[in-house]
Amino acid sequence: MEILGGPYFAVAGAGESHGPGITTIVYGCPPGFRLSRESIQIYLDRRRPGSTRHGTPRQEKDKVILLSGLYQEDHDLLTAGPELQAAVGNDLFSTQSYEEGFTTGEPISAVVLSTGTRSNHYTQFKGPEGEVRPGHTDLVKYYQSGGFVDIRGGGRSSYRSTISDVIGGAVARLVLGELFGTYFLSSIVQVGPLKARYSLQNYFANVLDETKEAALTREAISAAEARLEASEIHSLDGEFARAAADLIKQTRIDGDSLGALVEVTAVNVPPLAGEPLYNSLKARLMGSLGGLHAAQSCEIGDGLEVVARRGSENNDPIRSQGYQANSHGGLIGGITTGMPLVCRVGFKPTSSIVKTQQSVRKDLEEIDFELKKGRHDPCVGVRAGVTLESRMAIELLNAVLAHETRHVDADQYQLF
Amino acid sequence: MEILGGPYFAVAGAGESHGPGITTIVYGCPPGFRLSRESIQIYLDRRRPGSTRHGTPRQEKDKVILLSGLYQEDHDLLTAGPELQAAVGNDLFSTQSYEEGFTTGEPISAVVLSTGTRSNHYTQFKGPEGEVRPGHTDLVKYYQSGGFVDIRGGGRSSYRSTISDVIGGAVARLVLGELFGTYFLSSIVQVGPLKARYSLQNYFANVLDETKEAALTREAISAAEARLEASEIHSLDGEFARAAADLIKQTRIDGDSLGALVEVTAVNVPPLAGEPLYNSLKARLMGSLGGLHAAQSCEIGDGLEVVARRGSENNDPIRSQGYQANSHGGLIGGITTGMPLVCRVGFKPTSSIVKTQQSVRKDLEEIDFELKKGRHDPCVGVRAGVTLESRMAIELLNAVLAHETRHVDADQYQLF
Amino acid sequence: MEILGGPYFAVAGAGESHGPGITTIVYGCPPGFRLSRESIQIYLDRRRPGSTRHGTPRQEKDKVILLSGLYQEDHDLLTAGPELQAAVGNDLFSTQSYEEGFTTGEPISAVVLSTGTRSNHYTQFKGPEGEVRPGHTDLVKYYQSGGFVDIRGGGRSSYRSTISDVIGGAVARLVLGELFGTYFLSSIVQVGPLKARYSLQNYFANVLDETKEAALTREAISAAEARLEASEIHSLDGEFARAAADLIKQTRIDGDSLGALVEVTAVNVPPLAGEPLYNSLKARLMGSLGGLHAAQSCEIGDGLEVVARRGSENNDPIRSQGYQANSHGGLIGGITTGMPLVCRVGFKPTSSIVKTQQSVRKDLEEIDFELKKGRHDPCVGVRAGVTLESRMAIELLNAVLAHETRHVDADQYQLF
Amino acid sequence: MEILGGPYFAVAGAGESHGPGITTIVYGCPPGFRLSRESIQIYLDRRRPGSTRHGTPRQEKDKVILLSGLYQEDHDLLTAGPELQAAVGNDLFSTQSYEEGFTTGEPISAVVLSTGTRSNHYTQFKGPEGEVRPGHTDLVKYYQSGGFVDIRGGGRSSYRSTISDVIGGAVARLVLGELFGTYFLSSIVQVGPLKARYSLQNYFANVLDETKEAALTREAISAAEARLEASEIHSLDGEFARAAADLIKQTRIDGDSLGALVEVTAVNVPPLAGEPLYNSLKARLMGSLGGLHAAQSCEIGDGLEVVARRGSENNDPIRSQGYQANSHGGLIGGITTGMPLVCRVGFKPTSSIVKTQQSVRKDLEEIDFELKKGRHDPCVGVRAGVTLESRMAIELLNAVLAHETRHVDADQYQLF
Repeated sequence: MEILGGPYFAVAGAGESHGPGITTIVYGCPPGFRLSRESIQIYLDRRRPGSTRHGTPRQEKDKVILLSGLYQEDHDLLTAGPELQAAVGNDLFSTQSYEEGFTTGEPISAVVLSTGTRSNHYTQFKGPEGEVRPGHTDLVKYYQSGGFVDIRGGGRSSYRSTISDVIGGAVARLVLGELFGTYFLSSIVQVGPLKARYSLQNYFANVLDETKEAALTREAISAAEARLEASEIHSLDGEFARAAADLIKQTRIDGDSLGALVEVTAVNVPPLAGEPLYNSLKARLMGSLGGLHAAQSCEIGDGLEVVARRGSENNDPIRSQGYQANSHGGLIGGITTGMPLVCRVGFKPTSSIVKTQQSVRKDLEEIDFELKKGRHDPCVGVRAGVTLESRMAIELLNAVLAHETRHVDADQYQLF
Repeated sequence: MEILGGPYFAVAGAGESHGPGITTIVYGCPPGFRLSRESIQIYLDRRRPGSTRHGTPRQEKDKVILLSGLYQEDHDLLTAGPELQAAVGNDLFSTQSYEEGFTTGEPISAVVLSTGTRSNHYTQFKGPEGEVRPGHTDLVKYYQSGGFVDIRGGGRSSYRSTISDVIGGAVARLVLGELFGTYFLSSIVQVGPLKARYSLQNYFANVLDETKEAALTREAISAAEARLEASEIHSLDGEFARAAADLIKQTRIDGDSLGALVEVTAVNVPPLAGEPLYNSLKARLMGSLGGLHAAQSCEIGDGLEVVARRGSENNDPIRSQGYQANSHGGLIGGITTGMPLVCRVGFKPTSSIVKTQQSVRKDLEEIDFELKKGRHDPCVGVRAGVTLESRMAIELLNAVLAHETRHVDADQYQLF
Repeated sequence: MEILGGPYFAVAGAGESHGPGITTIVYGCPPGFRLSRESIQIYLDRRRPGSTRHGTPRQEKDKVILLSGLYQEDHDLLTAGPELQAAVGNDLFSTQSYEEGFTTGEPISAVVLSTGTRSNHYTQFKGPEGEVRPGHTDLVKYYQSGGFVDIRGGGRSSYRSTISDVIGGAVARLVLGELFGTYFLSSIVQVGPLKARYSLQNYFANVLDETKEAALTREAISAAEARLEASEIHSLDGEFARAAADLIKQTRIDGDSLGALVEVTAVNVPPLAGEPLYNSLKARLMGSLGGLHAAQSCEIGDGLEVVARRGSENNDPIRSQGYQANSHGGLIGGITTGMPLVCRVGFKPTSSIVKTQQSVRKDLEEIDFELKKGRHDPCVGVRAGVTLESRMAIELLNAVLAHETRHVDADQYQLF
Repeated sequence: MEILGGPYFAVAGAGESHGPGITTIVYGCPPGFRLSRESIQIYLDRRRPGSTRHGTPRQEKDKVILLSGLYQEDHDLLTAGPELQAAVGNDLFSTQSYEEGFTTGEPISAVVLSTGTRSNHYTQFKGPEGEVRPGHTDLVKYYQSGGFVDIRGGGRSSYRSTISDVIGGAVARLVLGELFGTYFLSSIVQVGPLKARYSLQNYFANVLDETKEAALTREAISAAEARLEASEIHSLDGEFARAAADLIKQTRIDGDSLGALVEVTAVNVPPLAGEPLYNSLKARLMGSLGGLHAAQSCEIGDGLEVVARRGSENNDPIRSQGYQANSHGGLIGGITTGMPLVCRVGFKPTSSIVKTQQSVRKDLEEIDFELKKGRHDPCVGVRAGVTLESRMAIELLNAVLAHETRHVDADQYQLF
């Protein structure tokens, strides 16, 4: 089953790259949170191709349409969302989708229609003579399914499937934000050989150090966000961002692509959340973040760096006010400590490149592969931040709900 | 998570009674089966209110719109499904949904728009003074969610949620039909005090007895179907069906409702499917069928009757050609024997009645409850058959896929 | 996976009929409940063969040995459980198992050694010429596993696997008992053609009616228990129990067996627990109780009887103090109402009988089957009560923990 | 639930660091594989403390005792395993555990008794004044459980829980080895600042390059194994191993600890296994390997290195015989390509060190923490290899079984 998160808070997704739309169902959102279409749309806007100058030029306008799971007494406001129409035979069906309401605890479903699809230029990939794009799933999925495969661009393995992640993440962010003031941010820290000088981890550590507070204020978070958004690519380091943007532009001209490293973090994290061991938040973040399309590495806290350290350097000292450092990245034994969650995910260079490559047809005849057409990011990592934030939020909410099952509050069982 | 079946073949559903639509995602359909919109629609047509004279007068036209999981090389035929349009702000988005293609193994998603909703007459149920309908979830869901509840008709607990069951069931039926010639039918065997004289179990046993064959022919199945469809309510016994239809009509006039007992069966069942014990097909059918809205009993094979028997009467004799009787209802130790799966599910009389009843407001003030308005089946069991067949198909397909994991066929792992 | 319950509170089991032992792991018990070996053993004593005069004469003494999940500061008391020794090669390993401690939230594991096994008389069932016992899984499991099957008595499909159910149930009972005063009881209401005059449902309804209380006192429950235990078979109706015991005795002499119907109930049930729809407590109880070995029917509340009723008779009136009747069996829309949970499960007559039957060898050669040896219950339903209570407790605790995930208590996330 | 892998092949574990024993249940092993106690024990021997000179001096002899899931017609050989005895009250129970048999498809359970526990020196950690070990779960688990915590050494978060991983892994290795000749190996590639010169990835690439074969011979694998075992720590690079061993010894004397980086690989991997996207083998390996105790990073294939590359360098060329390089680490789109699976996991320096550290009591009073006693690895990564191999095997078998559900072989459903 294609379920992200769970078993408490879970996102079910469906929909392939060039299909009619992406369908999402969000399970397990507790009742009573005010959710609007707009509060989801802002994250989809960050995710979609064309949202930065340096992503793919494909111009989709991914608009979320909410079909269930909300309510409010003012039915006009509730159903003020986009009208959805379907022409079936001679009949025209139309319905008003949801604009805003409180969550009811029942599943929240959403569709995003795909309007930018043009699949006629995919004949290059058709049938047993279809060409195989190196680095893509073309070959393995063809044989895995006995040839019954959608050849229009990776099907479900397309990055377009992350629309569901972002929708689910928007709901999780809302809940965690209201409950704990938790906030999720990401910053690109490397593009190809270029490295940023600043990380969110250090940035927020400095802010907390100066303010001597346990929690970050909304202002401090907004200041960081403003810096991220002001950069040419989503990074705290504006100078690096400019150089990286130039490199991306040049690489696109060269018909080539670039890898990237992205830092993702949660601040104002509730402590004590998560299960230990097999299903720990650490295991889940590693799997969820490191399992994203094109990712090949995932680090938590100080990550790979800790290998070269001694325990006496690496153990984070504890004082009565809290942990004095965050080498552990917010998780000890897979359980939240209240320190920021910090992960870094490394992405391979985009597989789709214009340069000629050695490949085969699906029947294994060897070819020199040249990409005929298509619209592709030269650096897929540049767009990954919002998806990483979303997946982190989904897993953290699961960890919180898991903690709820550890203590039963008998007061919650009152009827008469 | 609201998942029907699983973990192999699973149906995720969302959408409340009076919301914009019902969303469904079907996971785990093996690749390579030819699926059309129409092959799902025929089952939805059987499910929907108004499909029989004796169901609710509410006139919905539930049309399925397929948004993912299919493919064929002829893109025009693939995308010949209903056009779906959304007006978001000043932009109009439109997409062509799928009409027909082969399954790819990726999730199949579908939406059914709700166009018959009129919720203004639900003010009777609003807020802490809202009235509670006896037999409905109004009270428990109100307190369970801290008051954050959709009061327009049961939300997700509405029978409308079974649209997802039927869509998932249609896919499972297709797969099992092609693989094994398996077929699912149901027959109403009791309405209130009236009982049918014939059951599918006996009918098919007689046919097999006469033909001396192990499998039922398509003709024999069609003959049974024709009898079911010719009846005034979906029952093998036409005479009973007429009397029951009259009773239902009279009961509606009386402002009251009736219970019903429905037999559901699968014929040409593959043997050896299913796991033993906790997750056995028996346990799953009991839960899935007996767990349907308004159901209060579920029997397998000869069901309650076997309690009064001796083992020497009840054990089904075995000969070299097969089991000589089917007291066991197609399952021994929860594993299929190849005999027809036979279950009977008992439904309570519809809770919504016009007669005055003792009830409370949500704040527990006592009232004499009178249903102001609404469109309701006087006998919910009359419509349940197609949902029961669907759930049986979903569980049987799971049992089949579970059996696949018992033997690894190394030939299926060939790439170069 | 062979998991009972879940995903919150779950019981993992392993161990076949004539193997070395039954292994059980209980997941998801909240921390802080005081659990002793003895508090589990009392339920195992009720479960085991030989515990009633009318069960199988096989004399096992199933003793539970606790290996994990408990703690207390007094290590001597903690580890005062039975010593466990293993001779491996020339080395002798020994460990002190747990006697008593509080739960830590970590998994509780237990083993029950099988000491009464004598498998030499199972040669009748060996290899392709092995004989098939009608009504048993011999044939389907042989073909399902490609012949790699334990032929010593049903393997995992044996009733012996219910040891895990009972251990998990004991933990769930403890938790629910401490939190809510919930109590689980069962009563045999039919044996073959003989029917009891009293049910727990009516008995407790009368007690509540007289006392005008919402909850049953410990005394009232103990009084019912005393009556159950005083009967020759576990039934509220002593006269029926005597007649049934005589019938069982005579049926054993005849080499035959009998079916039974068992009522199982929970009193002092927390309202508002459970999810609606696919994963509702109703669906889960139907599956868990109705899925038990040899069960062929499951009813909730007034069960099959409601089919013949009208809605005006069947809807339970609601007053400000609560529901005025319990036709619904404690569940509306699959959610607890606070009324007693009431189910009835019908069991087929024990499949193992001495009388000659038509059967086959595994290679399908026809035979007249005569059971050579073995120790079997003539009426398996007589022993089922404690397992049904256990499964009901496991599912109810899951429903309670599911409710916990609906509201996040921010106070539970305090560290510094 | 504490389940490793699943839903097809899953390992359930229980048992805390200083408890009576570790309990393991392995679900979903297909029937028909010959399994012996010894074939599991060899991996436990590699796992246990004291198995290398450089691990902890604690001398446990972890012996596996098999209690279910095996069978063979020769009962004497089947039950030739260690005798298990329990003294309960005045009764002595004894059973013969399994030595060897074929798998039946039913759950395989095992216990490993803990005989080396001495918990009296843990009084340092008792109660609200108990001291908190920096880097350990002491503090979070104490507050998470409301104080109901086993303070004797991390409870379930202890490395001792990996006994279950290794037992499950041994079963998965057996199955994959017989089916596909798949083999799992690991090599330590970094200890503190010291780095090895050789990796398994390069070693096997060279062998395949020389032999021009698609699959590695048993001899080539054994040669690598011999080198690994001949080294002072489990590494292909003997010179590095010696230097690392010296560094570990010196670091122990210094009362400090070291991090490590471990490469883990599978060779002769079946292609086409695994699901795409959320539940892909990539996501699962990242979570399972990167989620191990003390791990803070996980890389697949060329891992972090690919970030700095261009697509034209990084895309692995494809020829008719196969992929010409393995930057992708055996997984494209999360699906196996048949190339070796390659991961690298980074471990932090062991948290338990003798040097004085800043910490608190559980009541948050500040202290200078000094470890009183205990037996600890100075470099936990040194022992992690066999667990990583086990987890990789468990996930790969799941991916294989998932592939089985994509095609239904109707021939497997024959009974009469």
